[in-house]
Amino acid sequence: MKIKVGIVGGTGYTGVELLRLLVLHPNVEIKIITSRAEAGKNVADMFPNLRGHLDLKFVPMDNGALKSCDLVYFATPNGIAMQWTPELIQAGVRVIDLAADFRFKDAEEWQKWYGQVHACPELLETAVYGLPEVNRNQVKTAQLIANPGCYPTAVQLGFLPLLEQGLVDLDSLIADCKSGVSGAGRKANVGSLLCEAGENFMAYAVSGHRHQPEIKQGMEIVLSECGQRDLAVDFTFVPHLTPMARGIHATLYARLNKDDIDLIQLFENRFASECFVDVMPIGSHPETRSVRGANTCRISVHHNKGNNRVVILAVIDNLVKGAAGQAVQNMNIMFGLEETSGLGGIALIP
Amino acid sequence: MKIKVGIVGGTGYTGVELLRLLVLHPNVEIKIITSRAEAGKNVADMFPNLRGHLDLKFVPMDNGALKSCDLVYFATPNGIAMQWTPELIQAGVRVIDLAADFRFKDAEEWQKWYGQVHACPELLETAVYGLPEVNRNQVKTAQLIANPGCYPTAVQLGFLPLLEQGLVDLDSLIADCKSGVSGAGRKANVGSLLCEAGENFMAYAVSGHRHQPEIKQGMEIVLSECGQRDLAVDFTFVPHLTPMARGIHATLYARLNKDDIDLIQLFENRFASECFVDVMPIGSHPETRSVRGANTCRISVHHNKGNNRVVILAVIDNLVKGAAGQAVQNMNIMFGLEETSGLGGIALIP
Amino acid sequence: MKIKVGIVGGTGYTGVELLRLLVLHPNVEIKIITSRAEAGKNVADMFPNLRGHLDLKFVPMDNGALKSCDLVYFATPNGIAMQWTPELIQAGVRVIDLAADFRFKDAEEWQKWYGQVHACPELLETAVYGLPEVNRNQVKTAQLIANPGCYPTAVQLGFLPLLEQGLVDLDSLIADCKSGVSGAGRKANVGSLLCEAGENFMAYAVSGHRHQPEIKQGMEIVLSECGQRDLAVDFTFVPHLTPMARGIHATLYARLNKDDIDLIQLFENRFASECFVDVMPIGSHPETRSVRGANTCRISVHHNKGNNRVVILAVIDNLVKGAAGQAVQNMNIMFGLEETSGLGGIALIP
Amino acid sequence: MKIKVGIVGGTGYTGVELLRLLVLHPNVEIKIITSRAEAGKNVADMFPNLRGHLDLKFVPMDNGALKSCDLVYFATPNGIAMQWTPELIQAGVRVIDLAADFRFKDAEEWQKWYGQVHACPELLETAVYGLPEVNRNQVKTAQLIANPGCYPTAVQLGFLPLLEQGLVDLDSLIADCKSGVSGAGRKANVGSLLCEAGENFMAYAVSGHRHQPEIKQGMEIVLSECGQRDLAVDFTFVPHLTPMARGIHATLYARLNKDDIDLIQLFENRFASECFVDVMPIGSHPETRSVRGANTCRISVHHNKGNNRVVILAVIDNLVKGAAGQAVQNMNIMFGLEETSGLGGIALIP
Repeated sequence: MKIKVGIVGGTGYTGVELLRLLVLHPNVEIKIITSRAEAGKNVADMFPNLRGHLDLKFVPMDNGALKSCDLVYFATPNGIAMQWTPELIQAGVRVIDLAADFRFKDAEEWQKWYGQVHACPELLETAVYGLPEVNRNQVKTAQLIANPGCYPTAVQLGFLPLLEQGLVDLDSLIADCKSGVSGAGRKANVGSLLCEAGENFMAYAVSGHRHQPEIKQGMEIVLSECGQRDLAVDFTFVPHLTPMARGIHATLYARLNKDDIDLIQLFENRFASECFVDVMPIGSHPETRSVRGANTCRISVHHNKGNNRVVILAVIDNLVKGAAGQAVQNMNIMFGLEETSGLGGIALIP
Repeated sequence: MKIKVGIVGGTGYTGVELLRLLVLHPNVEIKIITSRAEAGKNVADMFPNLRGHLDLKFVPMDNGALKSCDLVYFATPNGIAMQWTPELIQAGVRVIDLAADFRFKDAEEWQKWYGQVHACPELLETAVYGLPEVNRNQVKTAQLIANPGCYPTAVQLGFLPLLEQGLVDLDSLIADCKSGVSGAGRKANVGSLLCEAGENFMAYAVSGHRHQPEIKQGMEIVLSECGQRDLAVDFTFVPHLTPMARGIHATLYARLNKDDIDLIQLFENRFASECFVDVMPIGSHPETRSVRGANTCRISVHHNKGNNRVVILAVIDNLVKGAAGQAVQNMNIMFGLEETSGLGGIALIP
Repeated sequence: MKIKVGIVGGTGYTGVELLRLLVLHPNVEIKIITSRAEAGKNVADMFPNLRGHLDLKFVPMDNGALKSCDLVYFATPNGIAMQWTPELIQAGVRVIDLAADFRFKDAEEWQKWYGQVHACPELLETAVYGLPEVNRNQVKTAQLIANPGCYPTAVQLGFLPLLEQGLVDLDSLIADCKSGVSGAGRKANVGSLLCEAGENFMAYAVSGHRHQPEIKQGMEIVLSECGQRDLAVDFTFVPHLTPMARGIHATLYARLNKDDIDLIQLFENRFASECFVDVMPIGSHPETRSVRGANTCRISVHHNKGNNRVVILAVIDNLVKGAAGQAVQNMNIMFGLEETSGLGGIALIP
Repeated sequence: MKIKVGIVGGTGYTGVELLRLLVLHPNVEIKIITSRAEAGKNVADMFPNLRGHLDLKFVPMDNGALKSCDLVYFATPNGIAMQWTPELIQAGVRVIDLAADFRFKDAEEWQKWYGQVHACPELLETAVYGLPEVNRNQVKTAQLIANPGCYPTAVQLGFLPLLEQGLVDLDSLIADCKSGVSGAGRKANVGSLLCEAGENFMAYAVSGHRHQPEIKQGMEIVLSECGQRDLAVDFTFVPHLTPMARGIHATLYARLNKDDIDLIQLFENRFASECFVDVMPIGSHPETRSVRGANTCRISVHHNKGNNRVVILAVIDNLVKGAAGQAVQNMNIMFGLEETSGLGGIALIP
């Protein structure tokens, strides 16, 4: 039996990546893919890598038709999914939103960062933040998944074992993150042109980026669930634009509050049963290309015992573990499939 | 004494390149730079490489103010210069158009390729096609220069000695050309995104590109002036988009109609007195980066004596010798300056 | 039952690509992988994309051990496979050489281009040139496969229907080819550095490249088998280095000797039953990225009826259809598997 | 009158960059350029961007000939300059070493990080660390300049005003630095191949990089000279390899120990008279390309008053302000020329 899947907004980079994964997924049948701008166009005419793999046309948005699906993915800009989701939920359809609409627990905080009034704040509490390594049990039974942002996935996985064990000074956390340009989406904006973003490196949004509060919220929930209740994280986040298409590299800094911890052992134990987190041997430097196209997060831990500083390096493919791959992983969990189903691809080197 | 210069449309890649060159030109004073969209903005806020070098704001288009200039450059989209040029010409201002408005001699041909009725067809005959290596004498006294396109500059210089000497079968000419993405301009279009044009190579406009008739016209004029009147060139042109910002590489194919010619000697003689054409030693392969930022065209000639085929390789920086640098070269000639004035920069490697 | 596979020389780009494909192939068990330099090292330590997918160490070359395999791939530099192959053949092992050792029928021609005396010229006649779209039947029963070069694959597939039908002037054939830098291998040479090959475009080996005679031989065999015996192809080949890792784009030029042919129909018919050749709709321009990581060759045909010129565009991934993927395709055919087995991956965009 | 200049080791990226700058310098005559491997070769044959600009051949190393120069640049690997410098110094020649031989004050520390016994420890004390913004007066009269490393230039300039004013907790300093691949030199090593370093991002040397002690020494000297004697800096340095040729981006983190400081004003005042440091307006994010080919360091300061964290962004071109340009700047100061002489070039965008 196959899961009947609908995709809303399949013309961006997360959309085409979702298609690449779902087309080869043994338990999925793609029923509907919508795009206002491209309705009537063959999907494979837009993304020729899908020629011979997918015979489907974009259709206009039609919530009625989507109700016949078992699962609907929203790969839309922020603010779209919240308009259609309540009706789908009511109809018993499961929803995974790859945008930010359901990532915050607090509607006012959401409005502050996303500049819109939230259309269905009542769903914020029930939406499950789909980071399986943290929330797997909740994902299993969720009807609505807020798929995490790309930076938040890398940063939270990297800090996770330290936070759970209460090992770090909470005012010492810094995430210096570097993203490929696909993180900016398939929008025609000047800053993402090859002639602007190529052969160039720059920080952006240093004064405040939407992923900062998402990460902060996620870290505080982890602390809370580990009995470190009501602790506030003072967390500095600086994103940078890197001249490549795919990949996120998070360089994480913290100061330990305890001596003599074997951090690599701690990380290896924490992620031993996780199929998509790879803790590398001591002294390693994970490369973004080692996860290009794959759903893996690779992590290495560098501990300077002299000054009790720890540097954690975490890499993901922003379009896979940072978006479409994680969404498929969540689907697999929600529908009781093997968690790795359809996600066995090996990263492309070079 | 300095030439008072105005620039119309200085926010694209040819515009900023023109500024880079003119700011350091010893005989130029930039008086006016216009941009509808950016009026009021400091130029150096838009192009931070100019911080500390240029203290000027964009102003709205104002043909009256431009009349106070000695020379006006149009670095605008096609179809703009022809609207303002007649009035400037009448006022005695000299004009160099970096777009295509004055490149064709035939207004109907222009309309066919550029999709607009030409606004001043009477100027097409008097406009001088600003390829100094062909037309230097006419440039000297020109009031209106049609600055050649980027592909046409490389292709025409590469074929020039062969055409002048009547050495090639005119139905054997092929130009397989590769351009960096800056040739598409600083426009926000999806095809020029790093995530679309990076790590990718493709041909485009194989069925017909505007530079094909421009090149054909130029080659036929050369033939005509060398006494080979009324010969039609049957010329195949295929442009390709290359994953880099700057550079054009023209790979030119022809069949010789004579044996035993020393082609390298021919090319060296033809360009011996040209300051911006460099004929390389036998067996060379010019690299686009060897001219990055410089006004040079480097050429190498490969002659297969077995089958009388010749392969010519010509490289330029599309923004310099293919646009802004050639425009400055034309200015230097028009105003009786050293032809190399302000154009002595060395290409940036790596 | 699984095919027991050995790989000689698995540390280059064709090696790691072969591993990426074979690791997920349902009918393959990788028994041995050799490397002189890396013996004892875990393969996944060298190529971290294989972490969790392959648990195997490099071993020193050992022809005895290789004899226990059903199939041995040579992903070695030119001149290695020919030293070990005769013994393996004698032992009944099947061999696919991804290098050039068995691509030429004539040992003297081979020596001329590869600078070594051939070690087993007697095998040149029996070796099958592994271009399945031309030689599928011979591949089925072959014991020794000469896997085609990357350029030759793209060029021969692009010209194939025209040659088979005798439609082109044989002295008009030009292949202007562009390759990503991985074509130069994973060798530490200065010309392949990011700082040399990045943001740069250049031709190379214009005076003669080893793939020219390989293509010429292949085209003449096709002609001969179509009853156009003893015709010599006068063929110009110019390869270029393109600033990207993967991909070959062949721009092919020919003059037709007949009018009124529907070329697209011809190509579609010719390749209708080929699973790895995709003829695109009229007016298309195939992109190299549309086959990145996939075993597909995409072709489009542009016919200028005015001058009877045809321009064919063919793209492949040089490491897949141009090397490792084609080798797996040949294996599938040799062992009676589905030809697409293990080759169903979709190209990675972006 | 012109300074007679010799260059030892002119075949790397700092060498060709030095040539690009010196060839156009109005007060310099390049007399000698040495290379063991390329002796006899025309410099412009190796670096075709210099064709027409420089007519000089590489010669073998000859300290005698070098003694006829006024100034000798060493653009050699670490450990070479120290072998030849004492004799040149004795002969009254001035020396600028672009490698690391004279950057440390302590010979044992040098030996620890560079793995060799220092050949002339007696010169370490007299050598002047050539960061003009810190040591201009000493540079004026120096006979031997240790030209700073690329990372150290960006990091020290970025932290400088804060250290001088004693504004930061000295155990809170982190430099997360990103470098283009040219920082690894023009050596044939696999890690710098386009197919390895392109479309990839990674940290390296997290456990210890030679530039960490160089920066630490520099910062402690600054502290000491500002009366904050005997303070030890606890400083974390993580370098990353970025898929571009040129550019360093330093993202610097610190915690302020005072409230209510106008940091931008502080930085603007500190660098007001510096011709090569550009403090950008509030909210800016400097791009590496804005200094590509230029000798400028652009800095922006981001102060989060909520938690008293400061984030400083500093960009340089690693080959210019981080190497050859700074060396020319030092020469200008040493010889009483305008400090900007020969360094007026504008960065190349795009």
